[in-house]
Amino acid sequence: MYPTLSVHLLPTLIPPGALRGEVAVVVDVLRASTVMVHALGAGVESIRPCLEIDEARRLAASLPAGTALLAGERTGLPIEGFDLGNSPGDFTPERCEGRTLVMTTTNGTRAILASREADQVLIGAFANLGAVRHALTRAGRNAHIVCAGTDGLVSFEDTLLAGALADELERAGWSLGNDPARIAARAWASRRGEDLRSVLATGRGGLRVTELGLEKDIAAAARVDTFEVVPECAGDPPRIAGAGATG
Amino acid sequence: MYPTLSVHLLPTLIPPGALRGEVAVVVDVLRASTVMVHALGAGVESIRPCLEIDEARRLAASLPAGTALLAGERTGLPIEGFDLGNSPGDFTPERCEGRTLVMTTTNGTRAILASREADQVLIGAFANLGAVRHALTRAGRNAHIVCAGTDGLVSFEDTLLAGALADELERAGWSLGNDPARIAARAWASRRGEDLRSVLATGRGGLRVTELGLEKDIAAAARVDTFEVVPECAGDPPRIAGAGATG
Repeated sequence: MYPTLSVHLLPTLIPPGALRGEVAVVVDVLRASTVMVHALGAGVESIRPCLEIDEARRLAASLPAGTALLAGERTGLPIEGFDLGNSPGDFTPERCEGRTLVMTTTNGTRAILASREADQVLIGAFANLGAVRHALTRAGRNAHIVCAGTDGLVSFEDTLLAGALADELERAGWSLGNDPARIAARAWASRRGEDLRSVLATGRGGLRVTELGLEKDIAAAARVDTFEVVPECAGDPPRIAGAGATG
Repeated sequence: MYPTLSVHLLPTLIPPGALRGEVAVVVDVLRASTVMVHALGAGVESIRPCLEIDEARRLAASLPAGTALLAGERTGLPIEGFDLGNSPGDFTPERCEGRTLVMTTTNGTRAILASREADQVLIGAFANLGAVRHALTRAGRNAHIVCAGTDGLVSFEDTLLAGALADELERAGWSLGNDPARIAARAWASRRGEDLRSVLATGRGGLRVTELGLEKDIAAAARVDTFEVVPECAGDPPRIAGAGATG
């Protein structure tokens, strides 16, 4: 018997208890989850997500000198005094190798916190789509895609990624566990030879990133299967490290 | 300049103030909004939506003898002592002509109440898809599709109808105002020669209606452009009557 894949279009739309004992995949395509995949792919040892800027600063200061890499954004822009913003392409091996990424994001971190009752919390992006699919197939348990959304609004690009997983797993024999999974799978399947980058650019998040002059971030977010790493979040406070499919 | 079409996947996802001064279309395809279109198309004078069964009974008793037609459902099933359930096909001209339909539904009525700050509240179904599209085009103002959903969960069939309107109006030059509109339009566009009845049957609501042995209600809900009537809701307490495109 194949497992079931459900999709939650916002963290607040997860029915109470739904994730318990199952697998969650948190997605925030533009840009937190894409950054996490890039950073772990480029060699950071782990990621420490923080909701607040001050919390991130304190955590970074408490780590051994030269360890912390502070990154994040507010309203899409880099934060004063931080090492990096939220552009996936900036997370190069030179900058990342052996460091601990202290990252402050709002939507992505909230989605991770809302998913904690799951038995396993993975992070997904188009950059590791195939690796996430393999990880879910190997786990062989019911799974939930948790879309971060943006400030409480359902997001186009997160739903498309959820739909890509729903569509591919359904073709592989899985059942779709709820209507948002059916909606997302169909939204994804509607692409007929369209370039994913152009599609992502039409959503609210894509328009915002373009407005900020960061079109290259959309290109990075739209690149499929750039990395084999599947970030996994565990512990309290949460710590994200590479797991699963590495090869 | 063309207007903008936005979609709200649940009444609770309408941003505060978003509907003010604009047009709302409430949809609850399985089955409340489909029933309303059928009932007005079959000749009821008006519809009085009630949240509670007792409220509906009291209102029906207060109307002149022989006027009220009591209808509605709980967990999909007809209510004891009511004239009709929630099956669109039961609303025939013989039963409806000249009557006042007192109807108790939970999701549909809640969606109507949540849409009241709109300047105009219309009711949409596949049964009057073309008429609603014409009404929105004629109004020429920003519009919002409010999906009723089911007990707080996003519903497949409501999203597909929202997507049909978003897809058709976008082709006609309108802008899509939010990401749910983009998602819904793509979910609708994914149909490639599939029969709408079979598609609706795959959602949670369709599965539930099938389980109750009411497959004929899915067929009725999937029949496009059966009626030209556009129900419009106004007043307090709300009263729904045929308006707009009658011809």
